[in-house]
Amino acid sequence: MKNDESLLSQLIQAFKVLPGIGEKSAQRMAFYFLEKNREGGMNLAKLISTSVEKIRNCSNCRNLTEDTVCEICGDERRDKKIICVVESPSDVIAIEKSGSFKGKYFVLMGRLSPIDGVTPQDLGIPKLVENINSSEVQEVIIATSPTIEGDATSFYIKDQLTENNILISRIAYGVPMGGELEYVDNTTLGRAIQGRREIN
Amino acid sequence: MKNDESLLSQLIQAFKVLPGIGEKSAQRMAFYFLEKNREGGMNLAKLISTSVEKIRNCSNCRNLTEDTVCEICGDERRDKKIICVVESPSDVIAIEKSGSFKGKYFVLMGRLSPIDGVTPQDLGIPKLVENINSSEVQEVIIATSPTIEGDATSFYIKDQLTENNILISRIAYGVPMGGELEYVDNTTLGRAIQGRREIN
Repeated sequence: MKNDESLLSQLIQAFKVLPGIGEKSAQRMAFYFLEKNREGGMNLAKLISTSVEKIRNCSNCRNLTEDTVCEICGDERRDKKIICVVESPSDVIAIEKSGSFKGKYFVLMGRLSPIDGVTPQDLGIPKLVENINSSEVQEVIIATSPTIEGDATSFYIKDQLTENNILISRIAYGVPMGGELEYVDNTTLGRAIQGRREIN
Repeated sequence: MKNDESLLSQLIQAFKVLPGIGEKSAQRMAFYFLEKNREGGMNLAKLISTSVEKIRNCSNCRNLTEDTVCEICGDERRDKKIICVVESPSDVIAIEKSGSFKGKYFVLMGRLSPIDGVTPQDLGIPKLVENINSSEVQEVIIATSPTIEGDATSFYIKDQLTENNILISRIAYGVPMGGELEYVDNTTLGRAIQGRREIN
């Protein structure tokens, strides 16, 4: 970034690093704060810098937290016997909102990708295995994304855990609730048929 | 904003004040800075706070600037005899990019709106009239938006200037270049027909 650029254009450039934000949106954001909500701008600036300084990975599950151990890991009421492995903190938020899981999490912060040089170490998989070996975990639910890399990550984790006597499951992928079959893409439909279950 | 909320959820809320940014996008922005680009986050935070502190309205044309008088007002090579009146700093950027105007600007920072309590004083119209009276301006181009409020603002400004012996024009509104007539909305098409010009 050149320093002889005006402050305003530097500000617009700084917004443009955000994913999906182009020139026009970045302009709109900069002008919004300068014309309509200077207080909101200052508040955002303060929160970004405080968050960048204070938010780190939970020493246990790698989720983002401002404490050493995150709120979920520290919550005694949650079921320690079941761990859900997800790719990112936003997956934890999504599952928490669904209200359908009361166990603990492990956040990989990515997925295996030899091309991008993402190794099992980068995803903390040795730490995950260690966590499981040193505790009373009985089931591991793998909730990685239904992509080639997410599948590979899932297989790798399963491989690492086969020596332990625990149940390893993967969440169901298929037709979303309320979805019309004709609008569902082929891969999803294939997966839904492959993953069919007997009606009891 | 409650202070017992986690830093992360406060950060997500702070992004949500931006126009058009909902919960999901705000989450994505917060996680982007925390997971992928902490340096970019710090840079944005610094630029927002510096900009909010330093960027004010130009004392002459009301455009946003970090100096007392903005770059365009201070540029001796630009034509002082013609002033283009726009609603916002982003309009100045758009016109500058078109490369079709080499005069000066006056930025209203809004448009007349009795319902929202926006008065001529709020838009600096007395200052605009004073600027014009105390200088060698020969033409005023009004480039307010083609909305009811933009039209009202345009009429009001014209009214204030009729005593001066200057040309007052308004930019042309009509079918956009490259646009197919059948996809142009009725109001625009009406305006294009109303504003028809003789072919020379």
